[in-house]
Amino acid sequence: MGQWRNGNKSAGMEMKSGHSKAMIARLSRYLRGLEDHIRQGCETISSRALGEQLGISDAQVRKDFAAFNRLGYAGIGYRCADLIQVIRDTLGINRAWRAAIVGCGNLGQALIGYQGFRQRGFAIEAAFDENPALIGRRLHGLEVLPLRHFAATVRERGIQLAILAVPAEEAQKTGEIIARSGILGILNFAPVNLNLPKSVSVSSVELTIELEQLVFAVVQKQIVE
Amino acid sequence: MGQWRNGNKSAGMEMKSGHSKAMIARLSRYLRGLEDHIRQGCETISSRALGEQLGISDAQVRKDFAAFNRLGYAGIGYRCADLIQVIRDTLGINRAWRAAIVGCGNLGQALIGYQGFRQRGFAIEAAFDENPALIGRRLHGLEVLPLRHFAATVRERGIQLAILAVPAEEAQKTGEIIARSGILGILNFAPVNLNLPKSVSVSSVELTIELEQLVFAVVQKQIVE
Repeated sequence: MGQWRNGNKSAGMEMKSGHSKAMIARLSRYLRGLEDHIRQGCETISSRALGEQLGISDAQVRKDFAAFNRLGYAGIGYRCADLIQVIRDTLGINRAWRAAIVGCGNLGQALIGYQGFRQRGFAIEAAFDENPALIGRRLHGLEVLPLRHFAATVRERGIQLAILAVPAEEAQKTGEIIARSGILGILNFAPVNLNLPKSVSVSSVELTIELEQLVFAVVQKQIVE
Repeated sequence: MGQWRNGNKSAGMEMKSGHSKAMIARLSRYLRGLEDHIRQGCETISSRALGEQLGISDAQVRKDFAAFNRLGYAGIGYRCADLIQVIRDTLGINRAWRAAIVGCGNLGQALIGYQGFRQRGFAIEAAFDENPALIGRRLHGLEVLPLRHFAATVRERGIQLAILAVPAEEAQKTGEIIARSGILGILNFAPVNLNLPKSVSVSSVELTIELEQLVFAVVQKQIVE
């Protein structure tokens, strides 16, 4: 544990490893907000205005931005381009990342075609499935390959990330195949906990939790009214 | 703002409205962990053991569970069934929720078939699209209806939630149609901010942010090693 630094110390932000997933998610949201702001022709922004744009409290933004203070200008705020640079450095998205989709059912096909990934610099470079009816088909220009070609394809195409979109009952077995290939990270959409070697980072998208959070917001609104 | 209570005061947990999305997400995770634990035949659990199972620090679990203290037994911990009850009450998932899918492309079809929703008590009761090639088709037993039938269908079937899986460029317009129908909450998968009346709660699943968080974890691991 202890303290770590990001790769580009001069630009990136220092954090303690205790910093939460929620904080990292806010950095992603700040990034989107800043990019919107620049698209609208504004070059500077205050932490307060950014918080208002994103529905994040002023106190929270100021806390998150404490490490960026040296980038601020009294009475002006921050240059958006500076903040974008430092947040991209901190998140590690200041370079290209290549991903493979594993599982080309409806969800996998939706993810291959998802515009948001490419817009943010993530390139889907390969697609895999075990279903003979899918292997060899082209989905959004990518040929579906059998899973036994996974390790070789990952090496050839310089792929670092896998997006796992197989049914729950196949997720563990498929995750093990992916982990053995030298992949660095897996984004898991299957509603199961994967038990994999620590060499691979796993992040799970829990769709039911998203729905539960929505229900919580709905219930709170009913109580307040 | 100020303080609010959940609907069932005797069972639910009190919170301040400042409590974060991250806290609510942890409650969902505790719930899953507790259910796994019960399935394995264990009736009680300590906050420490639950944290270890889920990779959440002991300090964080104890902080989150401060409001549950009266449910604990010295030297034993908590009865899992008690914690499950109070967390379900707190989240508002102690009753049935009915949802409609809007947008039946690959993502919408994947969500209609997503097992996790039904397992957690969310029922998908209707599916809508504007594409004539999809309208009238049956997807996982649900007939795809045209969007102009949305408000009437929602009333007839007692649907409270909508899951929005349309392309980004149609999300705002479709969100407005949904909001006018009296729906309480929208789970938005389109990578855009929806600008809708405050009467409807909106929660967005940001797939790119999930991928950025994975990249952050990968980069940190490389730095530490």
